[in-house]
Amino acid sequence: MSEQSSVRKKIVVVGAGFGGMAVVQSLKGVEVDITLVDRTNHHLFQPLLYQVATAALSPAEIATATRVLLRGYRNATVLMAEVTGIDPAQRLVRLANGLELPYDYLVLATGAAYSFFGHDEWAAYTHVLKTLDDALSIRERLLSAFEWAEESDDPAQIQRLMTFAVIGGGPTGVELAGTMAELARSTLARDFKRIDPRSARIVLCEAGPRLLSAFPPHLSEYSLTALRALGVEVRLGEAVNQIDERGLLVGNTRIDASLILWCAGTAARPAARWLGTTAARNGAVQVAADCSVPAWPEIFAIGDVASYSAGRRAPLPGLAPVAKQQGRYVGGVLKARIQGKPAPGPFHYRDFGAMAVIGRSHAIADFGRFRLTGFFAWLTWSLVHLMLLVDFRSRVVVYWNWSWAFFTYGRGARLLTGDVHMQHTAATGDAANS
Amino acid sequence: MSEQSSVRKKIVVVGAGFGGMAVVQSLKGVEVDITLVDRTNHHLFQPLLYQVATAALSPAEIATATRVLLRGYRNATVLMAEVTGIDPAQRLVRLANGLELPYDYLVLATGAAYSFFGHDEWAAYTHVLKTLDDALSIRERLLSAFEWAEESDDPAQIQRLMTFAVIGGGPTGVELAGTMAELARSTLARDFKRIDPRSARIVLCEAGPRLLSAFPPHLSEYSLTALRALGVEVRLGEAVNQIDERGLLVGNTRIDASLILWCAGTAARPAARWLGTTAARNGAVQVAADCSVPAWPEIFAIGDVASYSAGRRAPLPGLAPVAKQQGRYVGGVLKARIQGKPAPGPFHYRDFGAMAVIGRSHAIADFGRFRLTGFFAWLTWSLVHLMLLVDFRSRVVVYWNWSWAFFTYGRGARLLTGDVHMQHTAATGDAANS
Repeated sequence: MSEQSSVRKKIVVVGAGFGGMAVVQSLKGVEVDITLVDRTNHHLFQPLLYQVATAALSPAEIATATRVLLRGYRNATVLMAEVTGIDPAQRLVRLANGLELPYDYLVLATGAAYSFFGHDEWAAYTHVLKTLDDALSIRERLLSAFEWAEESDDPAQIQRLMTFAVIGGGPTGVELAGTMAELARSTLARDFKRIDPRSARIVLCEAGPRLLSAFPPHLSEYSLTALRALGVEVRLGEAVNQIDERGLLVGNTRIDASLILWCAGTAARPAARWLGTTAARNGAVQVAADCSVPAWPEIFAIGDVASYSAGRRAPLPGLAPVAKQQGRYVGGVLKARIQGKPAPGPFHYRDFGAMAVIGRSHAIADFGRFRLTGFFAWLTWSLVHLMLLVDFRSRVVVYWNWSWAFFTYGRGARLLTGDVHMQHTAATGDAANS
Repeated sequence: MSEQSSVRKKIVVVGAGFGGMAVVQSLKGVEVDITLVDRTNHHLFQPLLYQVATAALSPAEIATATRVLLRGYRNATVLMAEVTGIDPAQRLVRLANGLELPYDYLVLATGAAYSFFGHDEWAAYTHVLKTLDDALSIRERLLSAFEWAEESDDPAQIQRLMTFAVIGGGPTGVELAGTMAELARSTLARDFKRIDPRSARIVLCEAGPRLLSAFPPHLSEYSLTALRALGVEVRLGEAVNQIDERGLLVGNTRIDASLILWCAGTAARPAARWLGTTAARNGAVQVAADCSVPAWPEIFAIGDVASYSAGRRAPLPGLAPVAKQQGRYVGGVLKARIQGKPAPGPFHYRDFGAMAVIGRSHAIADFGRFRLTGFFAWLTWSLVHLMLLVDFRSRVVVYWNWSWAFFTYGRGARLLTGDVHMQHTAATGDAANS
């Protein structure tokens, strides 16, 4: 069958993150039938997820229904469904509800999850931050801890309730620790009568010698100073040796904590297993220079689920811009193949720099040629993130919420839903005592 | 002990709804120790809860952390805890966590829950709308139904997934049915490729002869016409005879539905049982002309948990203004007693009228002397509700979201969180088939 057949080609895209959305967007108006499958019904602006976890933003401010974003795309169908496997020989994607989606081209953009370095049992005692649900359960535990401490008469219990550990000194760990410290020191400071939220202990544990190891050393140094000034207890060069329901062991130090956030290792989601192809060290799909899977040239893998090292010393990092650029690139490759035009050259990543934010008014930015720290970096960071937010509506609301939070230290999303009282026993550790 | 003792009197208020908040607010600056206990950490603007359930507003837009609202109240402590009982002889409030709160004065403002007219088993198959959690699970089921219908190839299953029943033709039922119809007919209309959301069936069942029976008949008539114009199937004068996991029986008509909303009978929460006093027909605490409980003059009950009929033919209705006015009144009574001043006269309810809203631009308003319908009533309704919203921040965000929704028919809160895939089987009724 010719590539220019009059039958419209079927493209299935799995994952509605930055990568998957970029593929669909770059195929706007092209005569194809795209099916975008995602476990959730929304596209998430993941770089701001930590702000939902720390009650600064509401879910609707950083996520938009995928259908709404793709309203103008007449060639795209959105399905909220879970993929359970792929049959590359038959060119079928299998869904948990029994449906099978046939494809001519398949793009895998399923992202990464957290890995526990062989300690899968730690998952039960820690929270990770990948989805809106993750963020909401962290927010719930964090806010409940103060509520429960306010009710307690036991100093040891109060101390444990108000101790929060963050494991992993990468951007997510640094951002979470910084905003948690601000939440305790500023936002909540005036709101309790029996406890002093400012006495909350936020411990950031990094096994390596410095924070934010992907940045130049002097920016790591700046972050360390900024975090310590916010009251975060940063522990460098000590591995986490144990985690249980009451706390953790860092090096030889026991820390009782009511909330442990795991921001350390990541691993790709199981796409390589679906395909039966070689996986990189973190489980990612090894791809060729055009982001296709060597054994199946009609299958592409992009973003965190892919390991792209063609012509590079190290694989590309798991960053949003990589996923976006790969998505746009693969969209172009597909368009060329379908329209019978010559394929574009290999994918080339354009690195525009990286940023990380520490609390309300500090950030670091590494644009290669120039590097920023402090308030000006923070301003750059907020502007860039605002510009990146996918739809106008979110942009206005987020801007309003940010400005408001900035000038008042207030938090608009401090709501506890779910059966928080049921979890009380677990968090206060009463079960362990009885 | 004299009422003017130098020891500060302890006041415990149970419930942070309109009534409980009004008590605390009217005691601002008075030399007392107030403890406000609530199961949740937030004060909820309940009249707009149906907008969260129908994805028009986000939780943070209609709820604010109680602590934030009471930040300036140095005489008030807020506890997030569940009350399990009261010992009126010892003057103690018992909490689920084992704490006991002593009081000199106690105000019960715990509100009402839904009752199923003796069919408690129906609770398992229906959703009610009282809390933020309720609203979020309705939203999740409602939005998921369309997602699952989009994936289905079985016409009967699609029809059932897209059928939603609302039981009870009071304000909540009318408001929910109206906005659900608009969600399907306008907001979602353009977003699906395989199904047509406009074919969704929204059935509103009222056992009585007319909708909104608390309003004058011509306003009921207007509401009926407006709802039918929005595409709601209104069934009057037929009782619900059965509810199960796949649908309901209204009169002799079987309706298969994926979501059943129960907005029919209400019953007061168990405060009367705690006190061992006489309860009204709906379980409410019978109170005297000053809102106190006859057997225990230091205990007051206000709002939906109280039955106030002193000098009236019928008890006061379960409305927000009643709760607010009783709260302010009881605050005044307490202040007078504590300061040794003469007690104010009996409580007098000032009825400023009632309103109900039908969809995006219809409402009815009954101000006694003049009655409004249509767009002007809707405008009045939105302004009044906006004014009533408790804090400025919410007001601006809600206003922004409303205006946006009004001009675009878009919904900003269309997010599914929670493990929606796990619920798929239940909602599609596959379990019943297998």
